[in-house]
Amino acid sequence: GRVSATPANASSPNIIIMLMDDMGWGDLGVFGQPSKETPNLDRMAAQGMLLPNFYTANPLCSPCESSRAALLTGRLPVRNGFYTTNGHARNAYTPQEIVGGISSDEILLPRLLKKKGYVSKIVGKWHLGHRPQYLPLEHGFDEWFGAPNCHFGPYKSSKRPNIPVYHNSEMVGRYYEEFQINKKTGESNLTQIYLQEALGFIHRQSLSGQPFFLYWAPDSTHSPVYASKPFLGRSQRGRYGDAVMELDDSVGQILSWLSALSIEQNTFVFFTSDNGAAVMSGPNESGSNGPFLCGKETTFEGGMREPAVAWWPGHIPGASVSFQLASVMDLFSTSLSLAGLSPPGWTLDGLDLSPVLLRSRSNSTSLTDRPIFYYRGNQLMAVRLGPYKVHYWTWSNSWEEFKSGINFCPGQEVPGVTTHTQKEHTMVPIIFHLGRDPGEKYPISVLSSEYQSVLSRVTPVVKQHQDSLVPAAPQLNMCDLAAMNWAPAGCEKLGKCLKGPESQPWKCEWPH
Amino acid sequence: GRVSATPANASSPNIIIMLMDDMGWGDLGVFGQPSKETPNLDRMAAQGMLLPNFYTANPLCSPCESSRAALLTGRLPVRNGFYTTNGHARNAYTPQEIVGGISSDEILLPRLLKKKGYVSKIVGKWHLGHRPQYLPLEHGFDEWFGAPNCHFGPYKSSKRPNIPVYHNSEMVGRYYEEFQINKKTGESNLTQIYLQEALGFIHRQSLSGQPFFLYWAPDSTHSPVYASKPFLGRSQRGRYGDAVMELDDSVGQILSWLSALSIEQNTFVFFTSDNGAAVMSGPNESGSNGPFLCGKETTFEGGMREPAVAWWPGHIPGASVSFQLASVMDLFSTSLSLAGLSPPGWTLDGLDLSPVLLRSRSNSTSLTDRPIFYYRGNQLMAVRLGPYKVHYWTWSNSWEEFKSGINFCPGQEVPGVTTHTQKEHTMVPIIFHLGRDPGEKYPISVLSSEYQSVLSRVTPVVKQHQDSLVPAAPQLNMCDLAAMNWAPAGCEKLGKCLKGPESQPWKCEWPH
Ligand SMILES: [Ca+2]
Ligand SMILES: [Ca+2]
Repeated sequence: GRVSATPANASSPNIIIMLMDDMGWGDLGVFGQPSKETPNLDRMAAQGMLLPNFYTANPLCSPCESSRAALLTGRLPVRNGFYTTNGHARNAYTPQEIVGGISSDEILLPRLLKKKGYVSKIVGKWHLGHRPQYLPLEHGFDEWFGAPNCHFGPYKSSKRPNIPVYHNSEMVGRYYEEFQINKKTGESNLTQIYLQEALGFIHRQSLSGQPFFLYWAPDSTHSPVYASKPFLGRSQRGRYGDAVMELDDSVGQILSWLSALSIEQNTFVFFTSDNGAAVMSGPNESGSNGPFLCGKETTFEGGMREPAVAWWPGHIPGASVSFQLASVMDLFSTSLSLAGLSPPGWTLDGLDLSPVLLRSRSNSTSLTDRPIFYYRGNQLMAVRLGPYKVHYWTWSNSWEEFKSGINFCPGQEVPGVTTHTQKEHTMVPIIFHLGRDPGEKYPISVLSSEYQSVLSRVTPVVKQHQDSLVPAAPQLNMCDLAAMNWAPAGCEKLGKCLKGPESQPWKCEWPH
Repeated sequence: GRVSATPANASSPNIIIMLMDDMGWGDLGVFGQPSKETPNLDRMAAQGMLLPNFYTANPLCSPCESSRAALLTGRLPVRNGFYTTNGHARNAYTPQEIVGGISSDEILLPRLLKKKGYVSKIVGKWHLGHRPQYLPLEHGFDEWFGAPNCHFGPYKSSKRPNIPVYHNSEMVGRYYEEFQINKKTGESNLTQIYLQEALGFIHRQSLSGQPFFLYWAPDSTHSPVYASKPFLGRSQRGRYGDAVMELDDSVGQILSWLSALSIEQNTFVFFTSDNGAAVMSGPNESGSNGPFLCGKETTFEGGMREPAVAWWPGHIPGASVSFQLASVMDLFSTSLSLAGLSPPGWTLDGLDLSPVLLRSRSNSTSLTDRPIFYYRGNQLMAVRLGPYKVHYWTWSNSWEEFKSGINFCPGQEVPGVTTHTQKEHTMVPIIFHLGRDPGEKYPISVLSSEYQSVLSRVTPVVKQHQDSLVPAAPQLNMCDLAAMNWAPAGCEKLGKCLKGPESQPWKCEWPH
């Protein structure tokens, strides 16, 4: 572990996972953002490894993230329960009125890392359920500074409580009350607070002799987008770009801090995002998915392809690129492996990426030709194998939503692909070659030998996946206004307890 | 000049302009290509300056390039005559049957550079007219290895001659005859030949004591796309990516060669492309325009925004980005300035970028808020000023072409913007903020104060431009089968003269 005198010792390194919120693949300079707002991330890539084929586990969502559950469990949402079956192929949400959260059957990464002495902290957004039994310290984290839900608001407290901000197990205030976000100017200090929480934890842990796991999950690129005063107005593309610049600056400060503390050769850092950019929110409140189709909420590449950079000086070769198909669930398995832990006995969807990450530059190790599965709820929408993506179902959003001005694919239209009905293609799937055609614009002709050959390779992979899949009970089917954050632990001390309504649960309904 | 003993001496540096053919903004790793095929160009950017807001002068075209004329004259096509008036808002072409070429009234960059003793060579595609009076050595170049037209073919020599390849003033063979391109496998050694021509010239000039101008214009990313054997199959995205990898490798070899010869601190290198990626050609034969709308042939960003990297160790700060609006015509003025020459007495559209390029990193010099004009033929389609782009006319391509399967904006559709009729908006222009909205998807509301403020600033700029503009006589209106490359100079020696038909000129017609 870190107690070793040799800083280059790779056993039980510190682990930092930086998970952005609604940031798109195309928001990084190194992934093509014309405004070039990320010199620190670009440098991180130049010193580490870029993974252009990195995926989230779900294209969700507005006020929740199955991808966060997938990261911390290493399992698909359909397997860990973080989904809904209230409608067909519906994205799941965790608004305040959600009753459920992360199942007590799931063992999260920080709990497993404890076996190797790791101290774990989450900074920022949790989103795996806000009722007491679902909170981070109940699931293996030792520390928390952040919020259980999205920073929507401000609310009238008689109708709906503002989201609490927690320090460990107790609230220390609420968004828009003690923790200001000015929706008009876009000003908020939250990213700075989340940065300081990270730097402080890293410093304390560097002195402690125990390895640490830091899960850094700021939410400033999720709508309503905010940045602190020194960053407002600095980008070429408005408030969203300002938020990206502040996050990039924070990443730079964290990496510099590791070097200043001389622990950079013993700290594995991974940067990614939880889902594609929310392009339906328009240019002021959303990012870029680069050349990819559509965005958040969809199973097109724009919804699920994520920026990804791995950094570990002395271990991960600099200026390297791996085309390995990888997923946020792999961070679970990879973290265990780096910590020196064997995989647990239950079914995982994540793979250990360390052979890919730690390869020497001349050695192009890649893992088995593993598939990527694209789900909405419990519906398998598509699968990727090698460069090929096979769509069994397509749906952008409903005609009703589309006609009301909500567009998950603004400016894009691929006939028969960006459909506004849930369209089934299981008999004759739509196949794209994502190398030649990353934008999913040119379906491969059904009559070609390429099509037939791809289908014959993919079909048994999908059959095996579906035959062996045991879906968990869906945790996100029920809603109840009484379940909202009326009186979080610690509210008494602050005099901030609110009184909620009687319990009247209903089946949650999502339009997409 | 280069005769100086101090290699860092900046007076009359060598100048290399690398102009790609139909390569898109999004084809560079540093501009977001998921296949990351350009480690050498990405390194060039890390050692130099990236210009994300760099434009060509025309979105042309299949077999010709007004942008090449604009580069070498520093003037808009409408001013240098390299356009057509045969239809309204038509792109101009220089197929083999074109009668015209670069006007004898235009003085090209290599001719002006002679005043400072520069020796100039063009390697690759010329495309400013293939009849004898239009060829490079008639216009100031000292050497040429390459072809006057596109590498279309192979042709039946009774119907249409294959394109000749010239060494200086005489042909040395023809494409598909002495210079093979295997359209089935995509194999050709042409890029390697063009690379060796560049390296040889640089070496000879480094020994000569005279400064040089190398205009390196390979054409392998223009359809039909080719690469040499070691590169075929190496990219994630097929033949087009293979061609990019070979060009990137060549760029790396040229830069390394400058260092090996110890002239890198005395050689200014600029990399760009002549127009947007030809997305209408489909995924096998075209590149990426990143987040931009449409491609080649259009005046949307995908047609005219170009990749651009400036490199000059010791002079241009490394790892820098300039958001300066700039154009291929600026390379004319900038080259003169670097050479120590005053601008000529006639009207130029290019600006001297050297204050931007040579700034110290802390100093964010930018030129005046200069406009970018987007033309088709003699029709001003749009203008950019600062982050705003104002469309006066929109046209993707005609309904007839579109219905026959030709699509200049595949997978993209912005209602009222990617129009299939030539749509006039001069009374109420469509305005985009290209910082927030690089994809031209969200027109700014006509009712907003932002719209009114932009329009009031842009209108006088356009009026001044139009009032002072003196269009040249269009050079590209007439076609004639007799004008084709039947019997280029040197054909006798090779026994490769062909007999053409009688002259029967007609007004050329272009469908877009
Ligand atoms: Ca999110
Ligand atoms: Ca071209």
